[in-house]
Amino acid sequence: MTKRSVPATRVSPYSYVAGRLRLLDQRRLPHEEAFVDCESAAQTAEAIRSLAVRGAPLIGVAAAYGLCAEARRVVARVPDDLDIALALAAERLVSSRPTAVNLAWAVGRMRAVVEASSGGAAGERVLLLEAEADRIAEEDRLACLAIGRFGAAWLSARWSGLVGIPTVLTHCNAGALATAGIGTALGVVRALAVLGPVAILADETRPYLQGARLTAWELREDGLDVTVLPDVAAASLIARGRVHGVVVGADRIAANGDVANKVGTYGLALAARAHGVPFVVAAPTTTIDLATRDGASIPIEERDGREVVALPLPGGGTVSLAPDGVGALYPAFDVTPAALVDAIVTERGVSEPPHAQALARFAAP
Amino acid sequence: MTKRSVPATRVSPYSYVAGRLRLLDQRRLPHEEAFVDCESAAQTAEAIRSLAVRGAPLIGVAAAYGLCAEARRVVARVPDDLDIALALAAERLVSSRPTAVNLAWAVGRMRAVVEASSGGAAGERVLLLEAEADRIAEEDRLACLAIGRFGAAWLSARWSGLVGIPTVLTHCNAGALATAGIGTALGVVRALAVLGPVAILADETRPYLQGARLTAWELREDGLDVTVLPDVAAASLIARGRVHGVVVGADRIAANGDVANKVGTYGLALAARAHGVPFVVAAPTTTIDLATRDGASIPIEERDGREVVALPLPGGGTVSLAPDGVGALYPAFDVTPAALVDAIVTERGVSEPPHAQALARFAAP
Repeated sequence: MTKRSVPATRVSPYSYVAGRLRLLDQRRLPHEEAFVDCESAAQTAEAIRSLAVRGAPLIGVAAAYGLCAEARRVVARVPDDLDIALALAAERLVSSRPTAVNLAWAVGRMRAVVEASSGGAAGERVLLLEAEADRIAEEDRLACLAIGRFGAAWLSARWSGLVGIPTVLTHCNAGALATAGIGTALGVVRALAVLGPVAILADETRPYLQGARLTAWELREDGLDVTVLPDVAAASLIARGRVHGVVVGADRIAANGDVANKVGTYGLALAARAHGVPFVVAAPTTTIDLATRDGASIPIEERDGREVVALPLPGGGTVSLAPDGVGALYPAFDVTPAALVDAIVTERGVSEPPHAQALARFAAP
Repeated sequence: MTKRSVPATRVSPYSYVAGRLRLLDQRRLPHEEAFVDCESAAQTAEAIRSLAVRGAPLIGVAAAYGLCAEARRVVARVPDDLDIALALAAERLVSSRPTAVNLAWAVGRMRAVVEASSGGAAGERVLLLEAEADRIAEEDRLACLAIGRFGAAWLSARWSGLVGIPTVLTHCNAGALATAGIGTALGVVRALAVLGPVAILADETRPYLQGARLTAWELREDGLDVTVLPDVAAASLIARGRVHGVVVGADRIAANGDVANKVGTYGLALAARAHGVPFVVAAPTTTIDLATRDGASIPIEERDGREVVALPLPGGGTVSLAPDGVGALYPAFDVTPAALVDAIVTERGVSEPPHAQALARFAAP
């Protein structure tokens, strides 16, 4: 086995040691590699809400470790309050962002450990919680590897007649910075890079610029070939035959296969379909929400319009992009109908339309 | 007649007095109302190239006055060189930007005056050129008014069952800042506002932010209701039924009705069609290029990718939006196929698909 036969990454967006969750502050990339330390659930919820940490799978992992940090903090002070403190902390973490279902899922697993260990010694319960958080992270790491392999195989099969280097377009950041592993969409990209050269086009992803700041940064860290483009240019490049596959992540996948993901995904799916370019959603099965029937039932986070017209500067402060007093809208996610999604790649396999049956199988416990 | 019965604007993007073309510097809006003075064709060409002045109809007007400024400059120094100087100046102006056909059209009209007046007194020839530039500007001003009325009537007819305030979405800036009048797309908006309340959604239009900076500024100046959104949010708002019409300008319309316009227009047209929302292109007949058969023959300006990843700051300098060393693509325009365009609104009437016949009639001399 050569060095390059397993997709990997140098990027590590979090660490957890004895009650301290250290998060790479994604608001400050690519200008600075700074960290946010969370030693309570409140600090972790604030890091999630303020987007210091983001990415559907990763905020699940962060919330799990945030509960561990909270447990250590409470046990050191008022160990008798552990159950009440963790119940409140779990609520706070789940409500820190509304769209990604992984957050509620990870907190749900931690809650089950809290309940199962009820009545046990406080110190031991903390260790049980930390073991569960480690399992959630390790499962996500392995899921990314499997997603990468499934996705690369699925796309490669569609490129059998392709001459030259294939180009994959992605939106937002569904990479190492969004997961505990090599990423979902970027996991597919990294797995493709093991098979041969691949070029990556990264939508800059306004207004938060996850593509320009995060996807470009993490792919460059791993020595991959990445080019940034304004979101509005994607449809035109697809129309000109310069894109061979679109691969994105997901924040929630409804039972029928409708996909909620970073706003802009739906427009990409329309353009890909108009030109017969494969449109692939890569996500762990924890993103599938069988309790949500279709996209219309997914809550879409409306963020503050000021985040659109005030661009944060690396040195602090913001620069205004629009005239004073003009309002702005910022729906953070959109819904892509299942029929436009050619493949939903999970760690358990690939779903093709109609998606409902395969998704039910993949998401079964 | 009440004050509001004729659509109007307070915004004036240029003035010309005796050899000096004064342009409102659109790079510095909305932070500052600064001006660029052009007293030669070279300065005018640089103002066009560097986007101090932009908008397909307006760069035609600016180029015409730039030739007048050049003529005054040459006549004051070496009047015998006038023909050679104007021929070189015309070349320089036409090549300052490649996509908009109005530029070549306006310069062509000025060249005809140069030729027709050949052999005449130099001072008199300057006055003939200035009269022609004034005519070009006045024709554009009147064209905007007619476009506004035709467009407002066409859209209103489609909104007969609509309850509540209609919402128009626009991309880039096809307004008073892009013309010598009330604008093309925003001319339609201003004409709608005379008929009744209308809400305007302005795509921010990355990377140059013409929507957030210019469209928002000029509509606010005129007291209209404008909200900015990230370009990526448009498809999602259209899907949710929150947009009743999409109205954009054009940089060049091919004989078959394919439309070159600011990159991002094509994606909007796909989304509008997917949800049955009228998609309207508003442009003077000078934008129609019968010599260009279809969109594939329109040259698409590729601007420097650095303009995508380096955002200019109001106080000077730039802020980097992506990691150092990561490349970027910036195709400045895209092509929307004629079949997706429900109406092309010109000062001579409205073309509906298939567009070829009506366009040929409208563009006939």
